[in-house]
Amino acid sequence: MSADPIRLGLVGVGVIARSQHLPAIAASPRFDLIGAADRKGDLDGVPTRTSLADLLDVVPDIQAVSLCTPPAPRFTDARLALSAGRHLMLEKPPGATLAEVRALAEQAEKAGLTLFATWHSRHAAGVEPARAWLADKTIRRVHIEWREDVRVWHPGQDWIFAPGGLGVFDPGINALSIVTCILPVAFLLRAARLHFPENRQTPILADLAFETVDGAPVTAVFDFLQTGDQTWSIRVETDGGVLTLTNGGADLFIDGEQQSGPAHHVVLGGEYAALYDRFADLIAAGRSDVDLTPLSHVADAFMLGERVAAPAFHF
Amino acid sequence: MSADPIRLGLVGVGVIARSQHLPAIAASPRFDLIGAADRKGDLDGVPTRTSLADLLDVVPDIQAVSLCTPPAPRFTDARLALSAGRHLMLEKPPGATLAEVRALAEQAEKAGLTLFATWHSRHAAGVEPARAWLADKTIRRVHIEWREDVRVWHPGQDWIFAPGGLGVFDPGINALSIVTCILPVAFLLRAARLHFPENRQTPILADLAFETVDGAPVTAVFDFLQTGDQTWSIRVETDGGVLTLTNGGADLFIDGEQQSGPAHHVVLGGEYAALYDRFADLIAAGRSDVDLTPLSHVADAFMLGERVAAPAFHF
Repeated sequence: MSADPIRLGLVGVGVIARSQHLPAIAASPRFDLIGAADRKGDLDGVPTRTSLADLLDVVPDIQAVSLCTPPAPRFTDARLALSAGRHLMLEKPPGATLAEVRALAEQAEKAGLTLFATWHSRHAAGVEPARAWLADKTIRRVHIEWREDVRVWHPGQDWIFAPGGLGVFDPGINALSIVTCILPVAFLLRAARLHFPENRQTPILADLAFETVDGAPVTAVFDFLQTGDQTWSIRVETDGGVLTLTNGGADLFIDGEQQSGPAHHVVLGGEYAALYDRFADLIAAGRSDVDLTPLSHVADAFMLGERVAAPAFHF
Repeated sequence: MSADPIRLGLVGVGVIARSQHLPAIAASPRFDLIGAADRKGDLDGVPTRTSLADLLDVVPDIQAVSLCTPPAPRFTDARLALSAGRHLMLEKPPGATLAEVRALAEQAEKAGLTLFATWHSRHAAGVEPARAWLADKTIRRVHIEWREDVRVWHPGQDWIFAPGGLGVFDPGINALSIVTCILPVAFLLRAARLHFPENRQTPILADLAFETVDGAPVTAVFDFLQTGDQTWSIRVETDGGVLTLTNGGADLFIDGEQQSGPAHHVVLGGEYAALYDRFADLIAAGRSDVDLTPLSHVADAFMLGERVAAPAFHF
């Protein structure tokens, strides 16, 4: 922990960078932000260029890059960062295809660099204690409700409804990243209904019926049109009681009773503080962390899902 | 090779079973077909039941199962076969989702059983010599044309246009199984246009733009509406000349000159003879062979592809 801070460049100064990444980086003693790249934006205090290539020319001291751009155009920058010998951290989802993330993982390994494909929701306060509690339970039934208002959380972000933007799976993959982490058994999709607005290329609502390899049902509703109260909850019925995660994984209940377990302090400062801490740990250890399971479930849903026509959507 | 023949049960007595599997099994000294299951069909000469569960009750001597049913309903039988301690061979594609095939692979490994996820086109006569010739070449450009008449090859098979049936990717995945085998570099999808008939759930035409990890273009057209001459060809431009596979991989040309390499004898008897031979080898060696790469590319195409409306399709 007493090593020199890692000199970081950030690409894509949008909503998620400003609300999460920049505060987490500023609070971390393990990183120094020394440059940024954004097609149009600007960042006070550090050199900002319109492309990563330019940034690396102007600020060659950058040792690691954090990519916060949308998934579809991210691959080109990701390949460039690794080719230029920089460690790399990817916002979720790590790419627009499974193949590109596998290619990046292979490139990082060959070059001896760290690739960290992040799933920020796995660092929500309730997730690790949920995983520990479920480890010895038999799963009987799981239900996921992930309902949010896209106009609030992704205002005007047309990329989310363009090919590669994943639509309602962009938040839904957060739920999948938690469930794939906490359940002690694997699960697989059996049927799905995906509602595509007639003027868009990705679904706005998804009804998913998975089952565990032991045959227990795992159902999910991902909904982008929820106004009023927002819902990000996971309910797991087991032979030892009912576990519920609410608030995107932050709050954990066992049989209705809220827990504040010993793991809570780990995520003081939030999910993104934990992500950057883990990125620094991975770099120090010379390792990578790339788990494709959540994105693979999304790809399965697009491949197997029945398409249902939905009304046009406008922000 | 002098061991007792493996006692085989076959599930799904449809077009592909009758035209390919049954002749290959009959010609193989390494398998004895001792039972079959089909929802409605019947097979002369061996006990036939309407379900795999019934078949295993009536003919418990079955040691290995070959599944020729469509991919969407296949998983339940696949899980049953492995749970009942039988080795398992899967027609392509090996499942309707990536997750289910991974679950089967894990189940087979735990049980010490052989799982063979077949890709019959990889055993076409030109494929192995193509792979060997390309191994030390630099790939400059690849183009795949896979055009066939669905009414000829899948007459009345509505499952192919239902969720999980993959549509034109059902033949297209054969091309992908060859290209992922012969190219010395990985590739990944950058853009795709998928044409969905307005009355169907899977595409009838796909335009795909991949690139290799070195940036060389790999384009593909999968077309289900080709009448007259059928085209299953792959053209690979390299620093050492142009390689072409035609006729689904059976015929190999280098710079326009047809090759009949030494590997040709390997596939005497056809692709399915080679598949069953390999299945017997895998069982004898106590190993599995499950390569998900072709199906993963298809899932990527469904996830990233732009959807284009196409006219209704009727057989």
